[in-house]
Order: sequence, then structure tokens, then C-alpha cells
Amino acid sequence: MTPNKLISLLTDFGLQDGYVGAMHGVIYSICPEARIVDLTHGVPPQNVEAAAFLLRAHSRYFPHGTVHVAVVDPGVGSSREIILAVDDRYFYLAPDNGLLGFLQGRPGVRFYAANNPDYWLPAVSNTFHGRDIFAPLAAHIASGVAIEAMFRPKEHIHRLPEAGAEDAGHEIRGRVIYHDRFGNLITNISRAAVGEREPQLVLFGDELRLPLVNSYASVPVNAPLAIWGSFDYLEIAVNHGNAAQEFQADRKKPVILKLRG
Amino acid sequence: MTPNKLISLLTDFGLQDGYVGAMHGVIYSICPEARIVDLTHGVPPQNVEAAAFLLRAHSRYFPHGTVHVAVVDPGVGSSREIILAVDDRYFYLAPDNGLLGFLQGRPGVRFYAANNPDYWLPAVSNTFHGRDIFAPLAAHIASGVAIEAMFRPKEHIHRLPEAGAEDAGHEIRGRVIYHDRFGNLITNISRAAVGEREPQLVLFGDELRLPLVNSYASVPVNAPLAIWGSFDYLEIAVNHGNAAQEFQADRKKPVILKLRG
Amino acid sequence: MTPNKLISLLTDFGLQDGYVGAMHGVIYSICPEARIVDLTHGVPPQNVEAAAFLLRAHSRYFPHGTVHVAVVDPGVGSSREIILAVDDRYFYLAPDNGLLGFLQGRPGVRFYAANNPDYWLPAVSNTFHGRDIFAPLAAHIASGVAIEAMFRPKEHIHRLPEAGAEDAGHEIRGRVIYHDRFGNLITNISRAAVGEREPQLVLFGDELRLPLVNSYASVPVNAPLAIWGSFDYLEIAVNHGNAAQEFQADRKKPVILKLRG
Repeated sequence: MTPNKLISLLTDFGLQDGYVGAMHGVIYSICPEARIVDLTHGVPPQNVEAAAFLLRAHSRYFPHGTVHVAVVDPGVGSSREIILAVDDRYFYLAPDNGLLGFLQGRPGVRFYAANNPDYWLPAVSNTFHGRDIFAPLAAHIASGVAIEAMFRPKEHIHRLPEAGAEDAGHEIRGRVIYHDRFGNLITNISRAAVGEREPQLVLFGDELRLPLVNSYASVPVNAPLAIWGSFDYLEIAVNHGNAAQEFQADRKKPVILKLRG
Repeated sequence: MTPNKLISLLTDFGLQDGYVGAMHGVIYSICPEARIVDLTHGVPPQNVEAAAFLLRAHSRYFPHGTVHVAVVDPGVGSSREIILAVDDRYFYLAPDNGLLGFLQGRPGVRFYAANNPDYWLPAVSNTFHGRDIFAPLAAHIASGVAIEAMFRPKEHIHRLPEAGAEDAGHEIRGRVIYHDRFGNLITNISRAAVGEREPQLVLFGDELRLPLVNSYASVPVNAPLAIWGSFDYLEIAVNHGNAAQEFQADRKKPVILKLRG
Repeated sequence: MTPNKLISLLTDFGLQDGYVGAMHGVIYSICPEARIVDLTHGVPPQNVEAAAFLLRAHSRYFPHGTVHVAVVDPGVGSSREIILAVDDRYFYLAPDNGLLGFLQGRPGVRFYAANNPDYWLPAVSNTFHGRDIFAPLAAHIASGVAIEAMFRPKEHIHRLPEAGAEDAGHEIRGRVIYHDRFGNLITNISRAAVGEREPQLVLFGDELRLPLVNSYASVPVNAPLAIWGSFDYLEIAVNHGNAAQEFQADRKKPVILKLRG
């Protein structure tokens, strides 16, 4: 696949300390024609599961040939490897801590591990590989340097513990895995899992029965609802309100989608 | 007017969830030569009035031909339309919920409504038209696709309830409509409304008399002041301090500018 | 030195109010081929010392010819000057309030003061020189306008009170000067100051003895540690935790690096 000089960055660095700006500087130093998209730098600190969820959800909206860089890296400075995944659409660069586990099994995907410091910054700190290793590697990939010059093939990568919902035929049982700025609670029940069956209603926790609707405005202001969200997963929201505040965004609270047929 | 391939984005999406990054991805997929400016994504959630205030204030600093996209859209998924305004300087794309009401009456402005899904993403979610409709439309406009291919003309658009100050000759009576990161309280009393009259002082709430000065440093540290701010509206501030914290940024508190002549 | 059309912005404006977006608009209006990096806009409001620390730390990762713009400017609207520093790598534009003091004494550096309003916006507000003066000057510099057309030479600039650590031979005594998003406490003890001596351990406050390690993962989860951070200064952190929350990020608390040899 041919890189398109577009690089997306997803980290838990936040924007206040200039860490992200330094990564931009490094990228432009190596690949002046790069275009950089800050996919997000607001991943909850060291939350690899959230990073994987957001990367999987958003990366597919980019043009083919984009280099997606994801740095949520509690093991920085330890012996964890830095890995690259290449499929027929994108390059993905991340620490080998499960963040790219969702790519395993995709048709045609190949994995690599970074093994050539000639393509890193000359001085590598112990704590900021985003700037010193990830940014230069991404810029070199975008510039068209051969993958084999910078990486060796790698068979197995780490995966996160499976977080799928449980399908019981007449219902799908899941849980909340993320909540966004608006307080929408995003579950691990995917639209694709429903198949031909017809959704009836959603049970949230022990007491709440929610209608599954097509728009927030389908229920009165301040009323709760369930909806297929923009990630194509079931979400729980409050019309004009904040579900994460109203309910506790407790990850253990069960969410059940009742089905017919 | 000819688009200049610059697209500005103003939303209430925040930066933490990657929603904005996905919009960038969609835009670059359609218009690879686009340049994107994040005007702000920190509009208070679902606050259409604040969005309109910030869009009107900041959009005029962009080069002619810019496509300004503003998505603060509590009615997403309902039947509200997506509208385009074109004047002799800019394109403005927003939901028809009053956000673009301030453009009505401008000389030469024309309004349109989006009516051709061929120029949207193939799958449109119920909750994220920013990514699925607004971003592709903006990218197609910037690429030079004819407006008529994507929109139909529209006569009337929604307006927000008027929020103007009241001019009583010897004084102008207004209120606080926004406060910024520094805690500066921005009122709806515009510099243009003063005309030839000479400002004397500012009354804030029932008790406070503030001098109208030319720089924060004109008063002692921690003293309050009134000043013509960068929006060309009257602002109330505290030198080296935070007026929104010190006073309550109560929207009902009256602000009166006393005038002579 | 030749500008490379790259402009970095470092301010305390935050991202919520659109102030930064307006600066982008002004820059693109003057220099359409500019590339803009938001180094950070999260400097604590009016904290010139933090701004200088971040600018010094991050600016060196940019390609030569970059224009670095830093606007943390409590004196905006007063008589403070706007200054430019040029060395053999970069242009630096900032208010003359000590922010660029760290450049004084660098080989080959020259200082200038802005003196030609023809290169500013036609209407200059009292409160937002970032948009009205800094952004247009940066864009004109990046476009290749001669420095002498916009600035006059200036001999002396303001410096911040010295914040260096104290070297007592067998130990270096410093303090915390910044903490980042992860809660890492960054001190003013630089790695370069250690020289040939061998670090033994770190004393923090009166009671805490911390090991100096090479990675967060070298200590148990939730244990405190000292590490040479990515700024090449001594940092105090907690593995998988937040040191700024755990300890008080008190700027007066002493940090002592014990040395041998």
C-alpha cells in the first residue's frame, strides 16, 4: 500500500503540556509535506481499552494510505515492543500492549516490530517515545521509506481480554464501555450482532426500561432513551441531558437488548 | 464566489472522543488539498446562541472563500434541515436552528437547503451528521462542486430570539451573554451602538460601578474594570483575575453603560 | 535564516473560545501556504514562567526556519513591547515580559522590537494582540518579508528571575516548577548539571526518599519514583499514578538529588 502523507495521532497526552506539538515538529522535520490530524489526545490516561475502541471506530473514515499512530503506553521504557500493522487500507503504529489486538485476524494484515534505531531520534528518552520513536517512524513511513528497513516481521501481538457482548438468542447482554463528552453511554452491543431479529426494548441496570428510538428528539426533553449511535453500537442517552451524570456510568451495570424473531 | 479550499469547523463536540478527528478524515478523503482550521469545538453543549456569537465574531478573520461549518445541533436526527448561506465572502453550513440567523438581511446573502444524499456519506447515522453530512458537503463545496447540485434554494431560515441591548439615549442597558476562558464577561453592548456619545462608566448589577479603561493594567491588580474587548463588545474583567469566578456570571444581571452627549 | 512557512503557536488562550481559530484565519489570510502547529494553548493563564519552560523545551524539535509565536501576555494593552528573537535556527515572537529571556546569551541571537503597524491588522484591539499583531507579524515573517521592514533592533530584553537549581557538589538542590497532565512533577534539576557525578537517590520534601530509575515500570504499581524525564530534567512520578495529586505539587517543597564522586 502507498502512503498518502496523512498521519493521524491518537494519544492520552492531552493538549496542555506541548507533548503533541513536539510530535508535530518532529514529523514536519522529517516529512515537510505531511498533513497531520489530531484524532484525539484525550484518551483517559493509560486506558488502552478506550484507545483501541476509539481507534477502531474512527480510523476507517480516513483516506487509504493514512498512517494511524496510537500512543497509550503505560509500559514506556520497559521492554514492550513498538509494532506496526499493515492491511490493505492503513498503517497502524502502536505499542504492543493490546491496542492493535482488534486487527488480528483481518484479511491480509501483517505485523512488524520496530528494530532499527537509525530511524528514531538520535537521543531517545525513557518516557516520551511518542516524540522520539513513534513520530519519526510515522514520518518515515509517510515519506515512503521501505517498511523492511525499519521493522522486522512479527508473528504474534498482544490482545486485550475479550470485551464482547453475550448473545442469548432472545436477548443480547452487554455493558457500558465508554462515555463521551455529551455523557452518552456507549455499550459493547453492536448493531451487526442483531442480524435479522427485531429489537424490542433495552433494559439498563435492574430497574430501567428504555425505548430504542431513531433520534434524541423522539422522547421528551430530559427523558432517557436507547439509540444506535454513530459508532454503530447501542448507546444510552438523555434527550438534552447527560446520561453519564444522571445514571452512574458504572461499567458493571448490565445492559440488555431484548429481541423478537 | 470561489472556494479557497479552507474549511473552518465550529462545534460542541469537544476534542476528547475523536468525533472531530473523524470529520477531518472524511474531509481529506473527499478533498485531499483541503486545509482545516478548528475554530473551536468547545461551545457549551447544545448552546446555539453561544455558537452563533462565536461564529459571527471569528469568521470574518478568515480569507474570502472559506467554508465555515458550524454544528451545534440538538435536533440531529429530527426533521430540521441542513442549510447553506452564501454571501460575497464566505460559505456557512449549519443546521437550521437559528445558528445562521444573524446572516439574514446581509446584502447579497442567499440561503439553500441540502437535498441530495449523493453528496453525503453512503451510511448516515442518526446522531452524527457532522461526520456523515456536514463534513462531506463542506469538502465538496471546497472542491468546487456546484451548489445547485447539492442544495435547493430556501427562502426563510430560523432565527434566534433577539438578544440586543436596549438604548435609552443616556444609557445602554444590556446583559452578559458569554464568558471566556479567562473569566471575562462579554456583554451584548456593542461599541458600534455608542456612536458619537461619550461613555462615562459602567454599572454592573445593583452595586458595582466600573471604570471603562483601555487596558487591564489601567487598574490595580485584582481590581474590576470594563473594557471594549476583542469582539468589539463591552466586557467586564478583573486585572490579573477571573471575573466569572469573582462575580457570578449570571445572565440576568443587568449591565448598564452610562453615556454623555 | 530562511523561513520555512511553518508557524508554531503557544498561548494561554485555551481552545474553547475560538481565539486560536481566529489567529489561524489571520495567518492563512496573509500567508495561504503556511502550516500551523498548535504547540499548546493550555499554558496556565498568565503564567509566563511556564510558557518560557514549555517553549524552551519543545521548540527545538521543529525544523529550522520555523516561526515560534508565544503569547502569554498579562500586560497586553500596556506599553510593553512586542519582540522578535532570531538565532541560527528559529524566529521567536513574544511580548517583552521575560518569556524570551532564556535566549539571551545564545550565540548569534539578535533581538528586535515591532515598530511598523503597516504589518498589523488595520484595527488593533486593546485586549487581543495575538490576533491583531502577533498573527499578522508571524505570517509576514513566514512569507519572507524583511525583518527590518517590521522591526527595529533592540539591545536589552526583559528576563525572568533566575530559577536555577543550586549545586552543592555532593548534592543538587532544586524545586518543582511544572506538573503535566499525568501529574508528573518536573523539577529545575537538569541532567546536564550532573556531569560526571553519579546520582544516588532523590529526597523529596522532608520525608521521602525516591529511587532514580529508568522506567516507570521499574517500581511497583502506585510506588513513587524519580526519573530523567523527556525534558531532560529530573521528574517525580508515581507508576500508573498521579504524583501531583498524591503529593502536593507545592512549588516550595525542596527536591534534592544526592550525588557521589
